[in-house]
Amino acid sequence: VKNIKIVIEYNGTGFSGWQSQKNGLTIQDIIEQSLLKITGENIRISGSGRTDAGVHAFGQVASFKTGSSIPPEKFAYALNQKLPEGIVIVGSEKVPEDFHARFSAKSKEYIYKIYNSKFPSAIYNNLLFQTPLNLNIDLMNRGCEHLIGVHDFKSFMSSGSNAESTVREVFYAACTKCENIITFTISGNGFLYNMVRIIVGTLIQMGNEKIDPDEMINIILSQDRELAAPTAPAHGLYLNKVTY
Amino acid sequence: VKNIKIVIEYNGTGFSGWQSQKNGLTIQDIIEQSLLKITGENIRISGSGRTDAGVHAFGQVASFKTGSSIPPEKFAYALNQKLPEGIVIVGSEKVPEDFHARFSAKSKEYIYKIYNSKFPSAIYNNLLFQTPLNLNIDLMNRGCEHLIGVHDFKSFMSSGSNAESTVREVFYAACTKCENIITFTISGNGFLYNMVRIIVGTLIQMGNEKIDPDEMINIILSQDRELAAPTAPAHGLYLNKVTY
Repeated sequence: VKNIKIVIEYNGTGFSGWQSQKNGLTIQDIIEQSLLKITGENIRISGSGRTDAGVHAFGQVASFKTGSSIPPEKFAYALNQKLPEGIVIVGSEKVPEDFHARFSAKSKEYIYKIYNSKFPSAIYNNLLFQTPLNLNIDLMNRGCEHLIGVHDFKSFMSSGSNAESTVREVFYAACTKCENIITFTISGNGFLYNMVRIIVGTLIQMGNEKIDPDEMINIILSQDRELAAPTAPAHGLYLNKVTY
Repeated sequence: VKNIKIVIEYNGTGFSGWQSQKNGLTIQDIIEQSLLKITGENIRISGSGRTDAGVHAFGQVASFKTGSSIPPEKFAYALNQKLPEGIVIVGSEKVPEDFHARFSAKSKEYIYKIYNSKFPSAIYNNLLFQTPLNLNIDLMNRGCEHLIGVHDFKSFMSSGSNAESTVREVFYAACTKCENIITFTISGNGFLYNMVRIIVGTLIQMGNEKIDPDEMINIILSQDRELAAPTAPAHGLYLNKVTY
């Protein structure tokens, strides 16, 4: 029995998110069905974490155990033969027995793409969140600075989640702008449910001069979800990479 | 009666190209149907030129005459209410009576995006042409240099076309690489049928060391389509802008 790590790129449009569910067209379910086809085994895979419906990934990671004789690096090729458009395994390798895509993760990086334009993008439609609001990226970056470090991010967690601890460390958070696309990048040792999307919603209000960037400190300290802004839509979000 | 110019962005995936055709889901047809809905007029629009099925545009241009009282700059907003996903009017304005999107064009710019990777892109699937070939961008750029200037580009025209003259001037042609995406940009005073895609097919063979870049001179001089390489696929091509 080998332990295999796969790295998965997917376009979340049209899928019901990562996590396996009854009657759901989820990315986990589809990959498990493809694994059954190529190995004959009913394999359960463990992802590094869930992504919601509409959220994309450049580098989601999953791991699984298999008795198959397929060489570890060939799983990517074999799975890609079976997977539908929108899901691609970009790498596969053998990992130590105790490797687990979720529990072994040291950090994760997300990006969020904002299309700052009067009209939606015809070409990148489901791949960017479009808003016509005036956004000052310098104000957004001042808001970002307050996110870095170890904080209780309870204000940036959707209700209904039952995380044991809401303390996380953010290593990096910043916005860059290229033409009319603003890309927010954030990395940290873990993220609460909807944390990135609520942070983005809040940064948008800072960029639009509705909330002062230095208010970020008070929003964090309040531990009050009501003080942060509404959750930004799923389709601008990408799980960029997971580091082990 | 006013003459209106519109700039159109579209994702060519799923459409039957630009040009109106019987029973075809073409971008021209769809825009004309939307114009009928908002003006009550049966309007024929003139595009700057055709694009094939699967080809995208950031800045296709069309013009049309209308007696409608809709303010010129509001056509974009009104049309976008009616247009399906994948087609967006990014601007509209009144232009002089003698303006014609095709005949008044001074230059056009196309870009072609190559995804140089072992596997297809899950996220940008229909927006990039994926190839696992080793491509040396320096060799491709040496090939590009020979394209610049006034030449007879007959070798780069698909048969079946009946252009009066096959002489065109290329103003700019070069490749850039960002991570594993190679972007080829070309501008000129006009392009023959499939000219950009045949040039790209040829540059790919130069990048892959199958054709010496300096052979570009002989391929042009030969006026022989057989000496150029096969046509690159439609879905990597974008009509980027038209200048008047």
